[in-house]
Amino acid sequence: MKKILLTASLALLTWGSTCLAQSAYFSDSKEWLRKAEACKPELSYQTISPVKAVRSVQDAKAFQGWRMEDAGQPDILFNEPFKKHPAITLDFGNHYTGYLTFSIKPDGLKAADAPVRLKFTFTEVPGELNTPLEPYKGGLARSWVQDEIVTIMSVPHEMMIPRRLSGRYLKIELLGISGSFDFVFDKLAFKAQTSVTNEAPALASTTDPLIRDIYKVGLNTLKECMQTVYEDGPKRDQRLWIGDLYLEALANAYTFKNHELTKHCLYLLAALANDEGLLHATLLEKPKPHPQYGTHTLDYCLIYNVALLEYLKETGDMETANDLWPVAVRQIELALRQFSPEWVYDMDKKPQYWLVFDWKDGYDRQASMQGLTIFALQHSYELAKMLGREKEAGEWPAIAGKMKKAARQHFYDKKRGVMVSGKDKQVSYLSQVWMILSNTLNKKEGAKAMATVMSMPDACYPGCPYAYHYVIEALLQCGMQQDARKLITDYWGSMVKRGADTFWEVYDPNNDYLSPYGFFVINSYCHAWSCTPVYFINKYPEIFQK
Amino acid sequence: MKKILLTASLALLTWGSTCLAQSAYFSDSKEWLRKAEACKPELSYQTISPVKAVRSVQDAKAFQGWRMEDAGQPDILFNEPFKKHPAITLDFGNHYTGYLTFSIKPDGLKAADAPVRLKFTFTEVPGELNTPLEPYKGGLARSWVQDEIVTIMSVPHEMMIPRRLSGRYLKIELLGISGSFDFVFDKLAFKAQTSVTNEAPALASTTDPLIRDIYKVGLNTLKECMQTVYEDGPKRDQRLWIGDLYLEALANAYTFKNHELTKHCLYLLAALANDEGLLHATLLEKPKPHPQYGTHTLDYCLIYNVALLEYLKETGDMETANDLWPVAVRQIELALRQFSPEWVYDMDKKPQYWLVFDWKDGYDRQASMQGLTIFALQHSYELAKMLGREKEAGEWPAIAGKMKKAARQHFYDKKRGVMVSGKDKQVSYLSQVWMILSNTLNKKEGAKAMATVMSMPDACYPGCPYAYHYVIEALLQCGMQQDARKLITDYWGSMVKRGADTFWEVYDPNNDYLSPYGFFVINSYCHAWSCTPVYFINKYPEIFQK
Repeated sequence: MKKILLTASLALLTWGSTCLAQSAYFSDSKEWLRKAEACKPELSYQTISPVKAVRSVQDAKAFQGWRMEDAGQPDILFNEPFKKHPAITLDFGNHYTGYLTFSIKPDGLKAADAPVRLKFTFTEVPGELNTPLEPYKGGLARSWVQDEIVTIMSVPHEMMIPRRLSGRYLKIELLGISGSFDFVFDKLAFKAQTSVTNEAPALASTTDPLIRDIYKVGLNTLKECMQTVYEDGPKRDQRLWIGDLYLEALANAYTFKNHELTKHCLYLLAALANDEGLLHATLLEKPKPHPQYGTHTLDYCLIYNVALLEYLKETGDMETANDLWPVAVRQIELALRQFSPEWVYDMDKKPQYWLVFDWKDGYDRQASMQGLTIFALQHSYELAKMLGREKEAGEWPAIAGKMKKAARQHFYDKKRGVMVSGKDKQVSYLSQVWMILSNTLNKKEGAKAMATVMSMPDACYPGCPYAYHYVIEALLQCGMQQDARKLITDYWGSMVKRGADTFWEVYDPNNDYLSPYGFFVINSYCHAWSCTPVYFINKYPEIFQK
Repeated sequence: MKKILLTASLALLTWGSTCLAQSAYFSDSKEWLRKAEACKPELSYQTISPVKAVRSVQDAKAFQGWRMEDAGQPDILFNEPFKKHPAITLDFGNHYTGYLTFSIKPDGLKAADAPVRLKFTFTEVPGELNTPLEPYKGGLARSWVQDEIVTIMSVPHEMMIPRRLSGRYLKIELLGISGSFDFVFDKLAFKAQTSVTNEAPALASTTDPLIRDIYKVGLNTLKECMQTVYEDGPKRDQRLWIGDLYLEALANAYTFKNHELTKHCLYLLAALANDEGLLHATLLEKPKPHPQYGTHTLDYCLIYNVALLEYLKETGDMETANDLWPVAVRQIELALRQFSPEWVYDMDKKPQYWLVFDWKDGYDRQASMQGLTIFALQHSYELAKMLGREKEAGEWPAIAGKMKKAARQHFYDKKRGVMVSGKDKQVSYLSQVWMILSNTLNKKEGAKAMATVMSMPDACYPGCPYAYHYVIEALLQCGMQQDARKLITDYWGSMVKRGADTFWEVYDPNNDYLSPYGFFVINSYCHAWSCTPVYFINKYPEIFQK
């Protein structure tokens, strides 16, 4: 305890100079930070101009009640005095992440004799632009909304909006100006950035057209989230989470193949583990890479091991995998601590950990965690074998076996053929999914469980694309290829049909305004964990033909 | 006409590169710009910290209904998490002009996991801080209000508010932050700037205490307005006007003696005259020195000559006075063009010019302009003599004589002993004042005229301190020293008693909310033309004793 307190006060003293953030548990953590830095990806840039002016139109049939209507060339910005249209909305034609620069100049001879006050609002979707913000009631910080007010003291003036922006639509409003002065825009450009450099594979011409569209939107989502880390969402959160890392790295391996980014993230997460070696669920890069202290999600810790294995398989990079092997070992040790002597995951055992799995109220995570731990033990053992370190993981296959047995005793409702979870014996999609992915249910049992749960009106169904990814994986593992395809075309396809440029953080086809934060404006509409159709489409092309 | 159009389009093309602003009339104007640049004053800087936290208190007896109450040490900003007092007002103890820098850091170990959105509002007086701005109805641009919203994407963070600010009170409001994060301020300082370097003379210990207070506030006003030009107001307008230049240069000559600043302004104004050599009333420095095209006030043009004379008297700088002599000649020529064959100023003659003299609705300026022209002819001739160039101004004394004669015939109501103006024969303070200053009325007549107008309830009285300056000059010229003193202690003294740190642009003791712009918040509360008590107090110390 004393040691933790000392670390805490040191960190407080040194904020902004050298964050003493690296883990005291792993003696190599400083070296890992250095290695992370060395493979930090370069960003590539593209200058984007608005493609047209648009007008917001209220439309009950449109997503969230708003759509954009063509309002002509963006040239009016440059050719007509701004007071003629003191609020103008521009469409960049797609979702971009980066920095907005602009310059204005006097319209004619008359000089500015007062400052010009402008408001720039950048949004991902039309509804977000047309919903009053105040009084603000969102559960996440108001400051994520991308509305920036600037005061320009003299004209001509060129500037960059200091914050990084992410979205498609830019509204510019005139909030203050001299009565005798007017101006035109001289330049306005968006410097879009990503760490993607390679082209993704093109699809066969025989691919279903809707699948082609889903692929395009998925690639765009992934590209936008691939910055100097795998971000969860480039508009909101802008940080690395282990769960997003795993899904983005899978998608990346089948598309852009920027493996340096994966390596960078794996090292960063390892270096910033806590002082007993437990990974932080998430980390932020600025002002210096640092974890969100105290935020640990045990399912994500185990998923890290799977991500490391997948990275090794893709790249053959034994050095990185060997470096980070102790991290994988430690995650297993800490997870096993949470099990009962009968090898059942104990939800009440201290310290209690946050388990993510899904954004879904009322979903019981016990059975899912049992399944995921088995899954992680199996994949971690595979990693051990690839590294020739089976001896260090000697007990894992046996423990996985015991856990499977315990799972079938504890969670399996043989009569109905489904896994149940918690004291209320809840039947959820994800309880089946994780028991399938861990081979606790065999292929036949799994297919039955999935068919059953999918036919139960009151089953707890997934709340977000992150969870749906694992549902698809489970369906494929059970040989339910057509169900997997249907889920992709129904769920992701529905977003595409409703105008998505990038896939959304949360989506319920029955509720456009669903938000985990009580206010849909603050949702992320370009969210990494929603991009994985691109992985499925490239990995199993035969499923997605016309 | 063709030439003017050509100049206009050239200027349009070159905005932001090289403003082709210098006068085509004076062949030396480019050289004058160079000379202006060479004597552009250096600014000196002082770092100011807030002296206390304050609380706004509504109080019907206070100026504009608001006063500030002590709310303790400013240390809470640095020692207590900001969410504890998410809106805090700081008092810098005096009026300052410059740039605000600050830094924030996490309160404790927890890192910021969302941007921090802060609003900084800087004001000159308490009422300005406590009046709702929206919907904005001021006649001048909303953008002059000094409220700036910033989004800080990661913490720790250090930044400067990009606009120059001017005032005393700073309110900081928290508009957005993560629910799990808090911060403290690490630094907050105001870098105050002025081109004043010398100390002003101290007053004799026998000076009336109220006069001492007026002197202090007047010096502060002048110091704040002395930047790289004589600004009219450092919060709002931030530009050089000829009228303010004259009064500030007079006050400067009796206090801080930064004659380089006067020289800089005289050259700038000359270089930026229009293409027939008429001075622009006002110019702005950024992005490059440029006039407010087309804004000419003929009274100010003539006042320029008087300012040049005073500069020469103070400094003996014959080179500058000789350089700028053609400018003085040209202002006289252009003013004379506006007179009738009988040497009466013709208000209707094209081109009609804006005449300032005062901010006052319904005030008839004809008699004032007649008097001011005579005054300018006399002073310009004095300048000619000092330069040995009487021959070039040979006709001016005779013309002044004719104008005086015409004035007495045309405007003088001998029966009542007052000057009247316009077709309604309006009796105003300023009509008397300018006839006195031009010696059109002799000392005795002048004293009678002033006594009469001051006793007339329906006389048109001055609306702003700029006009009151000339009233004081006229009273002193008529030997009415006690009336002059009383006006200073009543008018400027009243501002001091009501808490002024600097003298206000407009002030009517009967109406706290008076504003030439329909909204008192946008008034300038540190305005150059209000500083001249410092000139009178130092020039005539004998009048201001206990």
